[in-house]
Amino acid sequence: MTALNAIPTVDPGLALEIARQLERVVDRISGQMTSSIPEVEELCRHVEKYRGKMLRPVLTLLCGAASKGGSLQDGASEAHITVAAVVEMINLATLVHDDVLDDADTRRGAPTIARMRSSEVAVILGDFLLSQAYHLCSMLDSQKTSLRVGEITSTVCEGEMLQLVRRGRVDIEEKTYFTIVERKTAALIAVACELGARHSGADDETAQRFYDYGRDLGVAFQIQDDLLDLVGDEGVVGKTLGKDIEMGKVTLPVLHHLKACDARERADLTTLIRAQIPLNGERSSVVRRLHETGSVQYARNVAADLVERAKARILPLPGSGAKDQLLVMADQVIRRDA
Amino acid sequence: MTALNAIPTVDPGLALEIARQLERVVDRISGQMTSSIPEVEELCRHVEKYRGKMLRPVLTLLCGAASKGGSLQDGASEAHITVAAVVEMINLATLVHDDVLDDADTRRGAPTIARMRSSEVAVILGDFLLSQAYHLCSMLDSQKTSLRVGEITSTVCEGEMLQLVRRGRVDIEEKTYFTIVERKTAALIAVACELGARHSGADDETAQRFYDYGRDLGVAFQIQDDLLDLVGDEGVVGKTLGKDIEMGKVTLPVLHHLKACDARERADLTTLIRAQIPLNGERSSVVRRLHETGSVQYARNVAADLVERAKARILPLPGSGAKDQLLVMADQVIRRDA
Repeated sequence: MTALNAIPTVDPGLALEIARQLERVVDRISGQMTSSIPEVEELCRHVEKYRGKMLRPVLTLLCGAASKGGSLQDGASEAHITVAAVVEMINLATLVHDDVLDDADTRRGAPTIARMRSSEVAVILGDFLLSQAYHLCSMLDSQKTSLRVGEITSTVCEGEMLQLVRRGRVDIEEKTYFTIVERKTAALIAVACELGARHSGADDETAQRFYDYGRDLGVAFQIQDDLLDLVGDEGVVGKTLGKDIEMGKVTLPVLHHLKACDARERADLTTLIRAQIPLNGERSSVVRRLHETGSVQYARNVAADLVERAKARILPLPGSGAKDQLLVMADQVIRRDA
Repeated sequence: MTALNAIPTVDPGLALEIARQLERVVDRISGQMTSSIPEVEELCRHVEKYRGKMLRPVLTLLCGAASKGGSLQDGASEAHITVAAVVEMINLATLVHDDVLDDADTRRGAPTIARMRSSEVAVILGDFLLSQAYHLCSMLDSQKTSLRVGEITSTVCEGEMLQLVRRGRVDIEEKTYFTIVERKTAALIAVACELGARHSGADDETAQRFYDYGRDLGVAFQIQDDLLDLVGDEGVVGKTLGKDIEMGKVTLPVLHHLKACDARERADLTTLIRAQIPLNGERSSVVRRLHETGSVQYARNVAADLVERAKARILPLPGSGAKDQLLVMADQVIRRDA
């Protein structure tokens, strides 16, 4: 359970309580991510290796706590644990399908399902996880959460599709980049926050604040992911880097660079992006050129601005340890190296 | 709307009423299978071409009518229309992903999404359709239907996975074949029947009868599909045939043949199934040999027995036009040539 171990904590008691709640979330996921068919069960156990920092469940729990005066001492409600598990399972399902789309070798240091077995197996396993996530969500008292989760998952798919059909296109606008990222990444993080608050009885305005916090933080999170794919350390990140350019995905720093660089460099990079071939040793050269046009710094600045905006969303809310932790987590999103 | 046009009807008034209800189902599907992202919207419209006889929605409506005295004259409830739409959307989503698994060229005469665009696009579109189906299901008053739909969709995935990991295996037992078919095909048909009945207020025993009717009918339906893949007419079926052997899927007639034929023929066919290569002109030769061992007839007999069993499930229920139509539909499942 790396969640709060990896980031600065503002209250050791709260950190301990979150860690306890996360164990319940993990148990709920394991209890739901299971099958009587041995072949499916085995794959479910493998997918558990993809679990990372559990960002979405932590946000659900913290937003839930922040919405009821900042305390989780009474224990998160069963509904919070379920919502946190559902959101994480949807995330895991999309990761399994993402690895098919990205033709990826590893995920958090473990081989991807697509590579270990086949793309076909990964397609069906992702469907199974998605279906089990909805099944779990349907165990909640009201349909409202299922309705929201269904809506957001469709939004995530729309973002993925938009990115997919834009692959290899260097002429996309920054606006389109943000439309993609808000949908494919930020929407699920945002709803993890919103639903945590709603299940603590937050009113519409407060729930919206948490949603907006999560969305801004989510976009910053994706920009940091894009940056790590360029400037990160493969051993630390736990997957092959440079994949975005290889897959023809034009991310924010590259988008900036394409506008800032000269015509010859633009032509070279465009060729590389359109080719959708292995970068091999070229990643460091691309990064050097991105640094020269200030494009890495530009993306970092945009992410930092988003983090400040995320924090401002929840600043007006009553003070609590959970709220303070949410502020720290926002900062951490762009400080992480994995 | 081919549903009841293609099969003998027992009551013209009922047939007309079902046709009217199906228009509402189609409208509900179109209203839900939509996106503000033009690229997704366009693909949704293409998927509408895959809509066939609407077997599952028809069953939901008929089982609903049979459970409330056989009449649909008062109009199916909003819930019946929603359930019928949900089940059909889940079917469409699995078809889109199936075409990735089967590397298929066409579906109901239209190019598959995987072929028209890419496997990646098909993966995301299938996810979107699945998600939109759950979203629609969450609009119902109670979570019970969502819970059941989630459970059954997971069952479908388990069946698909079992079939996938058994590809190229000629040593599977008949029992495993039925486990696969009950899950990947029959479970969704069965739940379409059960939920139709439940939303008409059927008690547990009656709902179970309709489920069992649907499951038996569903297995027979799949056996007929397997037979059509061998002995069907490509122009009529609307897709490339002989695909099961090409994809290493050992279906019931082939399973029977492998036991009934001599050692040399067994070795030849085993090689063909394991190779997973295009059959080209060999389909007719395979079919001839299957006829010689009585394997085509064997599969037809098993399907016919299942149809009789399906009919026996609902025979004890009160008489009605809807019930009579369900009896006729069971027969039709194994008489169809597409």
